[in-house]
Amino acid sequence: MRIAFIGLGNMGAPMARNLLKAGHDLVVFDLVSAAVESLVAAGAQAADSPRSAAAGAAQVLTMLPSSPHVRQVYEGEAGILAGVAAGVPLIDSSTIDPQVTRAIAAAAAAQGNPMADAPVSGGTGGAESGTLTFMVGAEVSVFDRITPTLAAMGKRVVHCGGIGTGQAAKICNNLVLGVSMLAVAEAMNLGVSLGVDPKLLAGVMNASSGRCWSSDSYNPYPGVLEGAPAARGYTGGFGTDLMRKDLGLATDAARHVRQPVAMAALAQQLYELWSARGGGRKDFSSIIELLHHD
Amino acid sequence: MRIAFIGLGNMGAPMARNLLKAGHDLVVFDLVSAAVESLVAAGAQAADSPRSAAAGAAQVLTMLPSSPHVRQVYEGEAGILAGVAAGVPLIDSSTIDPQVTRAIAAAAAAQGNPMADAPVSGGTGGAESGTLTFMVGAEVSVFDRITPTLAAMGKRVVHCGGIGTGQAAKICNNLVLGVSMLAVAEAMNLGVSLGVDPKLLAGVMNASSGRCWSSDSYNPYPGVLEGAPAARGYTGGFGTDLMRKDLGLATDAARHVRQPVAMAALAQQLYELWSARGGGRKDFSSIIELLHHD
Amino acid sequence: MRIAFIGLGNMGAPMARNLLKAGHDLVVFDLVSAAVESLVAAGAQAADSPRSAAAGAAQVLTMLPSSPHVRQVYEGEAGILAGVAAGVPLIDSSTIDPQVTRAIAAAAAAQGNPMADAPVSGGTGGAESGTLTFMVGAEVSVFDRITPTLAAMGKRVVHCGGIGTGQAAKICNNLVLGVSMLAVAEAMNLGVSLGVDPKLLAGVMNASSGRCWSSDSYNPYPGVLEGAPAARGYTGGFGTDLMRKDLGLATDAARHVRQPVAMAALAQQLYELWSARGGGRKDFSSIIELLHHD
Amino acid sequence: MRIAFIGLGNMGAPMARNLLKAGHDLVVFDLVSAAVESLVAAGAQAADSPRSAAAGAAQVLTMLPSSPHVRQVYEGEAGILAGVAAGVPLIDSSTIDPQVTRAIAAAAAAQGNPMADAPVSGGTGGAESGTLTFMVGAEVSVFDRITPTLAAMGKRVVHCGGIGTGQAAKICNNLVLGVSMLAVAEAMNLGVSLGVDPKLLAGVMNASSGRCWSSDSYNPYPGVLEGAPAARGYTGGFGTDLMRKDLGLATDAARHVRQPVAMAALAQQLYELWSARGGGRKDFSSIIELLHHD
Repeated sequence: MRIAFIGLGNMGAPMARNLLKAGHDLVVFDLVSAAVESLVAAGAQAADSPRSAAAGAAQVLTMLPSSPHVRQVYEGEAGILAGVAAGVPLIDSSTIDPQVTRAIAAAAAAQGNPMADAPVSGGTGGAESGTLTFMVGAEVSVFDRITPTLAAMGKRVVHCGGIGTGQAAKICNNLVLGVSMLAVAEAMNLGVSLGVDPKLLAGVMNASSGRCWSSDSYNPYPGVLEGAPAARGYTGGFGTDLMRKDLGLATDAARHVRQPVAMAALAQQLYELWSARGGGRKDFSSIIELLHHD
Repeated sequence: MRIAFIGLGNMGAPMARNLLKAGHDLVVFDLVSAAVESLVAAGAQAADSPRSAAAGAAQVLTMLPSSPHVRQVYEGEAGILAGVAAGVPLIDSSTIDPQVTRAIAAAAAAQGNPMADAPVSGGTGGAESGTLTFMVGAEVSVFDRITPTLAAMGKRVVHCGGIGTGQAAKICNNLVLGVSMLAVAEAMNLGVSLGVDPKLLAGVMNASSGRCWSSDSYNPYPGVLEGAPAARGYTGGFGTDLMRKDLGLATDAARHVRQPVAMAALAQQLYELWSARGGGRKDFSSIIELLHHD
Repeated sequence: MRIAFIGLGNMGAPMARNLLKAGHDLVVFDLVSAAVESLVAAGAQAADSPRSAAAGAAQVLTMLPSSPHVRQVYEGEAGILAGVAAGVPLIDSSTIDPQVTRAIAAAAAAQGNPMADAPVSGGTGGAESGTLTFMVGAEVSVFDRITPTLAAMGKRVVHCGGIGTGQAAKICNNLVLGVSMLAVAEAMNLGVSLGVDPKLLAGVMNASSGRCWSSDSYNPYPGVLEGAPAARGYTGGFGTDLMRKDLGLATDAARHVRQPVAMAALAQQLYELWSARGGGRKDFSSIIELLHHD
Repeated sequence: MRIAFIGLGNMGAPMARNLLKAGHDLVVFDLVSAAVESLVAAGAQAADSPRSAAAGAAQVLTMLPSSPHVRQVYEGEAGILAGVAAGVPLIDSSTIDPQVTRAIAAAAAAQGNPMADAPVSGGTGGAESGTLTFMVGAEVSVFDRITPTLAAMGKRVVHCGGIGTGQAAKICNNLVLGVSMLAVAEAMNLGVSLGVDPKLLAGVMNASSGRCWSSDSYNPYPGVLEGAPAARGYTGGFGTDLMRKDLGLATDAARHVRQPVAMAALAQQLYELWSARGGGRKDFSSIIELLHHD
């Protein structure tokens, strides 16, 4: 199947490679020419705009950094909507404001293109190994039609409901993640200050009601988990600035539906503070460093 | 072995029964005479003060509501320290300020009594079924000596370090619990407001990085988990006022060691607010109701 | 001078009347026909769109509820920019996101129209009595040109800097206002709970370092100040939902410039919570009721 | 009149000097002998314990850093209560937990000594110039009796109610102060980031509803106010660690009376964070530096 793929960053590039491996014809676009060249070397065809990439494609997939990029790539003069044939499904795997998702979906529907939002979890590791989880918001018929495409890049494809619900599920998950990481950071620092060994403390929590992914799989205290970013100076992983952005999406979405989210809002501010003080590009579990004594 | 047991409330009474079942001689004290009578009917002997309960005991165990009660029961005129024989180990299973624990332990040590703090997790259910987890702060020799006693009331007895570290581990666990429950409450409300089915949303989080005990074992959204307090109007379980208290212990302990814990402090305030608005006696997962629209 | 005035709500209508009183010719537009009719009865001329109102005007003034309204009124098909003559200055007195202000100003500049943002403080009382304060962001030459117009509606016209700085000053002021009101509410409740008379407590603070407008001019505790909304059941005044919105603008603007504002974010959430629990249409000082015991 | 004065720190020493200047006979005690010697050189008599200082005094005054010190000085073996004659009024000008105040007052009353809490505002400057404000909690007859003594050290002596209400008024004032300083810091940083001149911004707020002591008399942004700590690198003034402590007293007192104070609790944590990162000994308005970008 001929697929247009727009957005070849740290996530998009390995996802596109997995589509090539699955035998699809890929037409790709990115503003960074080196990213395009690398995919062309792997067998893809280059396009000079999202519009020309979309022309002739049976499906279109986008993976972009933020809402304004997505708006531009779909609705701009040289955008997807200007080039795509009627009936072709459009899949956006970016993590963005669900309101923007719905606005673009409405514009697409007006010209006969069904749309799905399909943000992912699993990070760059999952993108490379093809083990991402896709959280998909789409009508059932659209979901069924695009599932084989997504399955070539991930191991789980979850239907969350109508358009926008993929984004909603993603930001709700990351809300809990961002808050619970801070809770674990506070608790680990406090316990150690009170004389408890960090590994033992993590063990107690992991066997009790404090158990969470941030403690048992990604513990922020150095020396507790071998594979975690804390074991390598908080390099790699999921950056503080990305968590900042996702918690910003969560608080924005909450404001639109008038849902109080005080813990998420405070967490967003603490990652903001950590970013302002130099922690923006480190893995988000480095927030524990903000709480240390100098 | 003859054991003095002081504090026969919702937790203490079933714990004392399990010691009786294990064949120990129990001398009990509580201010509520009905609580004493019920234990006497089960085979215990009544004492008229903590002091007289402690006199002649080989070990002393206390399970009390808060720091001032513990001080009074140990250090009061008719308290344990006034009656206990030198060398007898003292075990406090109350959840209190680790500083108070250490102060009492110092007074006990001065007269030749080793002390252990051994707060529990597992709730009234665990107390009844004898499946509590004990988090123990004590010297190794004391820990070894009291472990058989605790094992008669629980399934796990964890040595956390020196005196006070049992309390420390307990309040660190509950810090994460209190914060992550609020995060799950915010995320569930937000996701549902954005059109995601609550069971599906919990499923997505439980299979991803938002996974935590508050979501997968105690989800606060009605209809997601059959056995959780949310399925029965938030009755039973662990009360909001107890979470309020435990987060108060966490923020106090953090202040003493000058460790910032902003998320815990905000969580403490939100449970305080919920208590002020009528939610104090409900299970703490009812905090989700504070966040609902009227 | 012929002035186009768009937006005749609780603020806009009395402002427009003051321009009429000052002898200007007014062409007005609002979606609510009753609002238009009332101004026509006072001597204004009605237009059927912002575009036709703007056509032939020497200055254009807008007073609208939020960013999307402003975008629509300026940039829509029947919007101001489609009708206004080159060189005519555009004045927006709405309180909105400074980024939106700057985007519209750029579009206006591209077709030769200078723009100013001129949000106000002083409320509906100030609008009626013509005693508003205007915080103006504009080039000096534009500021000088529009000052006489604004002076007909207010007693102070402050030049804050280039385009967008009027909005910036307004939201910074309201950030402090929203936070300090909450501080005073907490302090008054706490002091009274600790046995201090509320009037005496306010007096102590007003003579010391806790002095602020929220305490000495708008105290939220009933019985402290005669003229304050607290004395009349929190009716009238500045609604909780408006404070919610303004703190939302502040946190959004802060996110754009990556400035941590944790206190503002928490305040925004507490007004959100109060709105969710029924306090949205009361004066914002009613937030003290959220903190009371039921 | 013969007055015992215990506690000769930065505040106590100049207060004691003002009593000497007013013609009183002073018997002083402090753990730091240099502090004692300096007062002796000024005409005071040294005592070797609070007990012996209190013996023979007509009034006793204490000015100490925190609750444990006050307990020790009053209730210790060589404490005031062990030496003072019946009927002599005791005045504590320390800022401490009102619960501790009330507990000591009860012990004092039991042996016939009336007590007053009389914490101050005005800082070291006010202590030196004799222009402090005293917030006094005491029975009316006690208040009348001690007012002349306090008037020798301050310009305002305010009766706040029964015992403990002086502390209550003080911590409520400082709650508002600590929160509003943070609000002003956030607003000043935000406004400057958005392009507004800091002096102009402060001027707008000071003439509007954001007006507060933290903005118009102690503005934290360098260059706005000449005499403020911001103009001298945040030296002198009221230390971050003192604000940390006072907000800790406020949140503790609030917990005892079950009053939610979310803003105070977050402020307490932010000063805690600033202290952990090196700002503890600077003036508390330096909190603005925590919020700057590195």
